[in-house]
Amino acid sequence: MTSPTAATAANERPSPFRSKAERAHDRGQKREAVLRAAVRMFNARGFHATSLDDVAASLHISKPTIYYYLGNKDQVLLECVTRGLGELAEAAERVRETPGTGLERLRAFLFLYAKVNMDDFGRCVVRTGDECLVPKNAERFRMLKRRIDGAMRALIEEGMADGSIAPGDVKLIAFTLAGALNWPARWHDPAGPETPDHIAEKMVGILTAGLAPRPAERPV
Amino acid sequence: MTSPTAATAANERPSPFRSKAERAHDRGQKREAVLRAAVRMFNARGFHATSLDDVAASLHISKPTIYYYLGNKDQVLLECVTRGLGELAEAAERVRETPGTGLERLRAFLFLYAKVNMDDFGRCVVRTGDECLVPKNAERFRMLKRRIDGAMRALIEEGMADGSIAPGDVKLIAFTLAGALNWPARWHDPAGPETPDHIAEKMVGILTAGLAPRPAERPV
Repeated sequence: MTSPTAATAANERPSPFRSKAERAHDRGQKREAVLRAAVRMFNARGFHATSLDDVAASLHISKPTIYYYLGNKDQVLLECVTRGLGELAEAAERVRETPGTGLERLRAFLFLYAKVNMDDFGRCVVRTGDECLVPKNAERFRMLKRRIDGAMRALIEEGMADGSIAPGDVKLIAFTLAGALNWPARWHDPAGPETPDHIAEKMVGILTAGLAPRPAERPV
Repeated sequence: MTSPTAATAANERPSPFRSKAERAHDRGQKREAVLRAAVRMFNARGFHATSLDDVAASLHISKPTIYYYLGNKDQVLLECVTRGLGELAEAAERVRETPGTGLERLRAFLFLYAKVNMDDFGRCVVRTGDECLVPKNAERFRMLKRRIDGAMRALIEEGMADGSIAPGDVKLIAFTLAGALNWPARWHDPAGPETPDHIAEKMVGILTAGLAPRPAERPV
């Protein structure tokens, strides 16, 4: 039995026992910290050269703790690329609700696409070859990438339909734009002087300057 | 002692002993076959998932034979990417001797650049992250890549100087063009219906359509 004094003190201090909601929140935050540490190490060293022991050591936790939150190394990689592709899908979703011509909306999508690729999970999507994933996960990875490609092609097609983009090979235009905006995942230095916003804006300008139809030559 | 008949027959057949020049030629061809088998396996499975045992088995030779011709796995990879970057340097050299405006010569270079990246060694350059190489080789890899980037920037600068390319951020234009034309190393299927020539031509058209200065608006 506690004395009245002790009871008062206990009421003044937060309980050392966490509520169910708090525990769920903690789990989410811990899972996030593990995933973020893993993706950064994959990006810096490459997937094959990274061991979950190193990831665990960087967080001062044990490898079984990583298994508990995320599973084995293949599952961690799948989670990283799924997150990156989820961010790209979200960008496509946001742009779908934006007014404007096809070209304007394509530009808005490309801007967000480039920024995701300069962030941790987007970098991981670009830096991960299909061959890094076990076959079942590689199939899922390809399927998610096809969706993003589909969203980009849809915007290009809309631009061609409304006349804001000159007619052309939709698939090859999409691959060309995506490739150019994937590459910062290899060269962009997050500690460098230019912000992702600035780089994304300039690259989108370079890439889309030639997409609009040329003004018809007026007779002299 | 051989009979006259046997001696005549021996004269009619080529000697079973190879000359010094023939042996050197054979060595070159064998080295080439080993390198080609290795680069294709690196491209298909990824560097880390490829063992020199697999490469050796695919040629029905032993692993020490690969060591004899090319060295260890790190050395084989360095040789593959050095070859790819050599092909790109050769393309830059060819274009340097070509007449035309900066933009015309940039287009010619981009076309060759794209084609190299759809061939074995160029694919390997793109698919190989710096982190795949041991530090000394990674330094050499980066140095060779900087030279190609330098050649591309020089062409863009010439185009800006002669007025065929609109003023802009030279570095970012080079990175944008290179990134777009690196990406086919990931998606191009050599067994697919479109030839590298066809793809390269269309991609260069898409990428360079917006580089020329816009014609000044004429007063109405």
